Amino acid sequence: MITLYDLVAQDDRRPSPFCWRAKFSLEHKGLKWTTVPVGFTEKDKISFADSQLVPVIKDGETGVKDSWAIALHLDEAYPDKPLFKSEMALSYARFVSGWVDTAVQPAMFPLVVGDLYSIVRPVDQPYFAETRGKRLGTTDFMSFQAKAREKGVAAFRAVLEPARRILREQPFLSGNQAAYPDYALAGAFLWGGIASPLVLLEADDPVHAWRERMLDLYEGLGRKAKAA
Amino acid sequence: MITLYDLVAQDDRRPSPFCWRAKFSLEHKGLKWTTVPVGFTEKDKISFADSQLVPVIKDGETGVKDSWAIALHLDEAYPDKPLFKSEMALSYARFVSGWVDTAVQPAMFPLVVGDLYSIVRPVDQPYFAETRGKRLGTTDFMSFQAKAREKGVAAFRAVLEPARRILREQPFLSGNQAAYPDYALAGAFLWGGIASPLVLLEADDPVHAWRERMLDLYEGLGRKAKAA
Repeated sequence: MITLYDLVAQDDRRPSPFCWRAKFSLEHKGLKWTTVPVGFTEKDKISFADSQLVPVIKDGETGVKDSWAIALHLDEAYPDKPLFKSEMALSYARFVSGWVDTAVQPAMFPLVVGDLYSIVRPVDQPYFAETRGKRLGTTDFMSFQAKAREKGVAAFRAVLEPARRILREQPFLSGNQAAYPDYALAGAFLWGGIASPLVLLEADDPVHAWRERMLDLYEGLGRKAKAA
Repeated sequence: MITLYDLVAQDDRRPSPFCWRAKFSLEHKGLKWTTVPVGFTEKDKISFADSQLVPVIKDGETGVKDSWAIALHLDEAYPDKPLFKSEMALSYARFVSGWVDTAVQPAMFPLVVGDLYSIVRPVDQPYFAETRGKRLGTTDFMSFQAKAREKGVAAFRAVLEPARRILREQPFLSGNQAAYPDYALAGAFLWGGIASPLVLLEADDPVHAWRERMLDLYEGLGRKAKAA
């Protein structure tokens, strides 16, 4: 049994996109896992892994931090059902993870930051306000979000164009079966969807249909998540 | 011997990014090929393939249009040295091609459009001015380019971040060997570099070092190209 240290917000909501990558990775490999909820400020819970950030896993006596390192560790420790079957699979996963980190999530964050703040546990809100406030230049997250949505939703949809193009041709980014590239993008949508009721995708967008498939995966793991 | 119908500008320069994808694909497979230069307005030369745009190839009696269809055709007709060894390789190539088409090239185009116009054959300039002028809302391409460069170079470099991240970890987007994802991005840089002397990348950028490797591939195919 592997333990995942998973970011927690109010009402046991689990919004972290990087923790979602770890959850999908564990499911992909058919491993048994459980979670320990970790608030933004509960750094002591993950200090055993020398980490300041979730996700962290504890696998027997081994602590592993960082979603990418966790995926690599799982493939090394449990060779069955590989996340990365080939150098090309590893490269594709790396590329899409980088794209999600540097293009998709930065385009989504301003659209949902107010809602995200409102679900953070009260005890963690000062931490969130300080760290995210520094990044955005304001702690009035609701006003910031409202302004960002004026043009930001269209810009966010435009950023998704590479995914949209490939999803017109095949059911998953990875082909006929979901794999790490899909998990990386799905993590971003779970983050947004758990935090906010904002309609990010139009109903006829191929990315919308893909997201539905991703929510169904692994007995509806994502669909069952407590959301906004 | 396969014939590639290849966009030509002044002084036999060959700037089309999509034609470069086809050239790298032909080289990857170790096939013999030659080119027929085609100016922007010489649509009659490629009408046999029912195409308005290059690249087009003539392979025996078969005409194939569109760089992606050409790659698929080559793998089907010549199974040796596959461009797409697996569903994952095909998916990665599709994703990166879409990213180059919708993020990289649109960010680069405004930065070089004036220089590009200046190398177009005089007989083709009215066609270029009309089609690209409609897209940009002006035919004063030099002024447009100068203004675009004020903020556009930094924005272009930011768009490359997913490539930069992976190229810190491995020599090519595709791993230890170049493959279609690398060809798609290299095509964009050849387009820009053949048209314009603009410094698109800083010398210490991992994308810069990768571009050097791409210029060296296949006996310096890209490096030998006539450039600005």
